[in-house]
Formats: sequence, C-alpha cells, structure tokens
Amino acid sequence: MAQNIDTLRWQGGIDGHLVMIDQTLLPIEFREIECRDVETVWEAIKSLRVRGAPAIGIAAAYGVCVGIQTAGAGDDALRARLRQVCDYLAQSRPTAVNLFWALDRMQQVASENAELSAHALRERLLAEARAIHEEDRQMCRAIGRLGAELLKDGQGVLTHCNAGGLATADYGTALAVMFAAQEAGKRLHVYADETRPLLQGARLTAWELQQRGIDVTLICDSMAAQVMREGRVQAVVTGADRIAANGDTANKIGTYGVAVLAAAHDVPFYVAAPSSTFDLTLSSGDAIPIEQRDPREVTHGFGRATAPEGIRVYNPAFDVTPARLIRAIISERGVIEPVTRERIAEVLGG
Amino acid sequence: MAQNIDTLRWQGGIDGHLVMIDQTLLPIEFREIECRDVETVWEAIKSLRVRGAPAIGIAAAYGVCVGIQTAGAGDDALRARLRQVCDYLAQSRPTAVNLFWALDRMQQVASENAELSAHALRERLLAEARAIHEEDRQMCRAIGRLGAELLKDGQGVLTHCNAGGLATADYGTALAVMFAAQEAGKRLHVYADETRPLLQGARLTAWELQQRGIDVTLICDSMAAQVMREGRVQAVVTGADRIAANGDTANKIGTYGVAVLAAAHDVPFYVAAPSSTFDLTLSSGDAIPIEQRDPREVTHGFGRATAPEGIRVYNPAFDVTPARLIRAIISERGVIEPVTRERIAEVLGG
Repeated sequence: MAQNIDTLRWQGGIDGHLVMIDQTLLPIEFREIECRDVETVWEAIKSLRVRGAPAIGIAAAYGVCVGIQTAGAGDDALRARLRQVCDYLAQSRPTAVNLFWALDRMQQVASENAELSAHALRERLLAEARAIHEEDRQMCRAIGRLGAELLKDGQGVLTHCNAGGLATADYGTALAVMFAAQEAGKRLHVYADETRPLLQGARLTAWELQQRGIDVTLICDSMAAQVMREGRVQAVVTGADRIAANGDTANKIGTYGVAVLAAAHDVPFYVAAPSSTFDLTLSSGDAIPIEQRDPREVTHGFGRATAPEGIRVYNPAFDVTPARLIRAIISERGVIEPVTRERIAEVLGG
Repeated sequence: MAQNIDTLRWQGGIDGHLVMIDQTLLPIEFREIECRDVETVWEAIKSLRVRGAPAIGIAAAYGVCVGIQTAGAGDDALRARLRQVCDYLAQSRPTAVNLFWALDRMQQVASENAELSAHALRERLLAEARAIHEEDRQMCRAIGRLGAELLKDGQGVLTHCNAGGLATADYGTALAVMFAAQEAGKRLHVYADETRPLLQGARLTAWELQQRGIDVTLICDSMAAQVMREGRVQAVVTGADRIAANGDTANKIGTYGVAVLAAAHDVPFYVAAPSSTFDLTLSSGDAIPIEQRDPREVTHGFGRATAPEGIRVYNPAFDVTPARLIRAIISERGVIEPVTRERIAEVLGG
C-alpha cells in the first residue's frame, strides 16, 4: 500500500478483471473487491463502493469489458451483449453524468469499428477503457504539477471535503496538488476539515494523505478559523463540483465559509478542478441550484441520533464561493489567475 | 414540560430533596433524577448529569441540604456532618470553580450563625441554597431582558454551542435573550450550530428551543456561512467562558469563526454572559490558555470511528474572539457597547 493507492485497476488482458477499493469500508477497513462479472460492478457503483464522477466513469468502462466476456461466439453475439451490458450499467446510478459519458464512448468505439472481428473488438474496447483511465490520470497529474508550483516547502495547507484519488483514477485534484508538491520535495503540513455531515474529510482525505505519507492533521470544520488565526495555514486548496463562466464555484457545503475565513486571514484560496468541471452555460454562481439533502445526515450522522426527534434541519449539499474570493483555479489546461470571465475563456480556449 | 424546564429544583422543605434533569440522556430521553442522598448528587456532578458552571454550584448547595439530613441529633453533629458533606462534594469535580464557591458560601452561613439551633441552621442553609438558585435566575432574567431589546420581531438569530437554561438555574445566557424576546412577543427564527465535536448545539440547544416552542433549525457548523449569505440571520448571540479586561472573549471552539463570518456579512455579533465571566486580571485574550482535548472526541464522536487509526488530531476546546468583532456584551449589569476596556470597567463598576 503506502505509496500506491489504486482506486481502480484492471488486472490482466481481455480475460482479466477489475479490482477496486471498497470505499464504504474506509477508513476502518481497506478491502479491494474483485469484479469478475458485470453484476459486481453494477452493485459497486449502486452502493457507492466506488464514488466520484471520474472514478464512476472509469469503473463503468471496465465494467463493459468484464460484461462482454460472457458473450456467445461470433461478432453479432458480442455486439448484442455490449448493448445489453451498457443498458444494464446505465441503471446503476442514473444521475451520474460520467457514467453515461463513459458508456457512450464504449458504444461509439463499437459502431466506429464495424469491420473488427469479435476478438479485435474486445481488444479495442479494453484499450478504450484504459484510455479513459489514462486520460483521467493525466488530468490529475497536470493539475498536480501546475498546483504544486503555487505551494512552498514547509507550508501549512488546509483542504475541505475529499478531492482526492479515491474520486478519480489516480491522484485527485485538490490532493493532487499536495501529492505533486511532496514529489517535488516540498514538505507540507495539511489540515483536513472533517466535513460534516458526511465526514468525507475525516474518512477519506485523512486516510489518503496518511497512506501517501503526507503530514496530516484532522480538525472539525469549526476549527479552521482558529488554525488560520494561529498562522498554521498558508494556503487553502479545495476541489469543485461545478464552476460558472465567471469563476463562481460550487463545492461541498462549508467551502464558502472557508473561503471567507481565508480572505479574513490573508490566506490564498485555490480551487483545483479539471476543465470538465466548468459549465460555461452558467453566467454566474447564482444560476447553480443548491440541492437540499436528507435531514438524517445531520441528525443521525454518527450511527445514532444526536438531535431531538422532529427537529427541523437545513442541509444544503453545496455552497457557492464567489470568484472574488478565489485566488486562482488550477485546471489541467493551465492556472486561471486572476479568476475572471476573460481569463477563464482564455485558458479553456473558449 | 413544554414551557417549564427546570434544570434543578428543590422539592419540599428541609426534609425535601433535589430533582434534576439527567443531561447525559438528552435529547433522546428526558428523565429527571431524584437526589435523596448526597451520594446521588455527587455522582450526578461527577458524571456530567448536571453541567455548566452555575448549575453545578446550585446542585452542590442543594446537595449540602440533602447531605445534612442524615446528621445525628444536636448542633455539633450537624456542623460536623456539614463539613464532611462539603469536603465530599468538593471532590466530585475538582476543576469547577462554582462548586467551591457554592460550598464555601454554605459553610460561611454556618460559621456566621454559630448561635442557631440545629433546626434553625438547617432552615438557614436551605434558604441560602435557594438564594444561590434565585440569584442565578435573576441574572439570567436580567440578561434576557437587556438582550431582547437588541432583537427585532421576525429576525433570524444564530447561536453556537449551548448557553441555555441547562447550564444555569433557569433561562441561560445567550438563550435567555431568545426566551425573553419571545416573551416580549417577538417571533424569532433561531439557527443552532450543532457544535462539533461534542454537539452541544444539536443535543441541548436544539432541544431547549424546541421545548420552549421557539422556531429552531439545526445546521452543521459548516453551514453558518451559507445561512448568513442567504440573509437568513440578522444577529448572532453566543455565551462566553471567560472575558478579558479588554473584551476579548473565550468561548467554545468555532465561536471565533462565526464572529469572522458575521463581520463579513454585516451581521452584529453579541455575547451574553454574567459579570462573573469577566476576569479583569487578564489584560487581553492573549493571556487565555487554550485547552487541548482528547482526539477521540473528534475521531470517535458518537460511538464509532469516523477517521483512520492513528490520525493526528488538533482539538482545541476554546477559541478567543477579539473584542473588535463583538458588537456588544450583554451582562446582567448592563449592555457593554462598544466593547472597550473603559466601557467594561464602567458597566462592571470596576
């Protein structure tokens, strides 16, 4: 383990199988699941054993490769089975955009390569799944490399939620910056917000950093201000769920508060996110709807009731950090600084 | 229940007993404990069934009244038993300043009334315990009355941790302001921060407000910024653990962050605290030591592990909010505004 955490990996050739970390057991137990049939992949996506948009897409692509192993002999049987497997996997998590994107891409390969034999098509589909995987890895590495240049040896860095390797192929986005800084010989001290209500920071970020040997301290969300006041933090880096054309950034609830606190303590606030996170059809963050989630995430977050029966709860999943509070957005295509509509269009080549 | 929550009450005359809410069971279960012997009072203080500095002092005073019921006949036996009971109760929670203060006050009564018969002294001691109780009630009411004038009908108010009736005789400090506003016919909507790591906001504040029929919504600490940004909150009111001569205020971890967020959203931030909370020997908040608490409060919050084994944790119990972020301090002797060394000295009569 230690240095090598593969959220997902393909074992063997076209008769191989998918191996993934069961994220529902982290951080208490590290267990990998061997997916040797498509039903196991379906269940893993459905039950959030694999989570994070990029990781779900990669799992689905490899899931197709597993699923077609049971096709009957002949070209037609393979192509029929491919359609069947894609339809099936599409139902595992019907709101995950990357799931459909990956399945479409796999079917596209089949329709663009009508001349291939069954065996050759199997090879081609596995190559496509590997390409999806590799592209995500490259994206993570590029973000890491660009972001690491913004950090200095010996700095304290605060992060919120989990924008790490577990949500992607390899390296993550916000955490990629820290991993790359470490590889470049910069020693960082990371403060991980536990990130209520679902505790992704405590459960996943703290674990990933610990596994990679990065000096990490877990804090409650309410301690971020004090940590900044004590001068322990020289930068904040978070991920993003959706970024508007003007740079306003939706991310896990609590991110906006951290950005306000960072501004009040003169700490630069960075967002690390792939270009696919930008939604240039949204003029500003005002157009981003805020999803309200189940009150039980707040009242029963630790396995038992921690609030009175019948209490009203406000549980927004996200908040929007205005562009003016963001020092720079680190994308795989370049660092966007200052965060303005013009600079975003320029870097994204829009 | 509903309108009438007595953290502590004395039932009957000198042969009566103390009844208290078992706060360790809240909010899941409301159960009162009948303390008919001093051992039960001792255990309740020790096990945090009663908590909060004022409430502990009152419990100890009534505990003396229960304890002396088993004294042998005659004046000497009563006075010997009184000393024994005070020594015993003093060991229940050796760091609680109010515990010693209350026990000293009870012993003082005995030494100042050497001429009294055993029966008369018992009456006098019960009267003293009732006086301690009543003074605290008056303090709460005065803070409530003064603070309520600062709030307007229809406002949203955010609070952090629990500065409510459960920590005092009756009404609390920060929550007293809300209860008094309600009694004055002002409808408030209160947002209660859950207050990690120990969730006093979720467990106690939400419960108290719900019991008193005040419109309350529970949020995670990380949601306070979003609630302010949406314009849902027009004032913040919190309690205080210790206030320096210049107005810098130590309170539950997370309070400072809320104060910074309030300033960024132009929301006035008020502290409600009795004059006994001021420590004028401290020139500023820099002199207030920050206690570090058990990492397991963060990693094993509510019965199960939520973070990886061996993770480092930073868990300060308090933070210090600088006076410049506090609009006013509401004490029973008057509202301190602006929060300056001079105005504090003036209101406290120092």
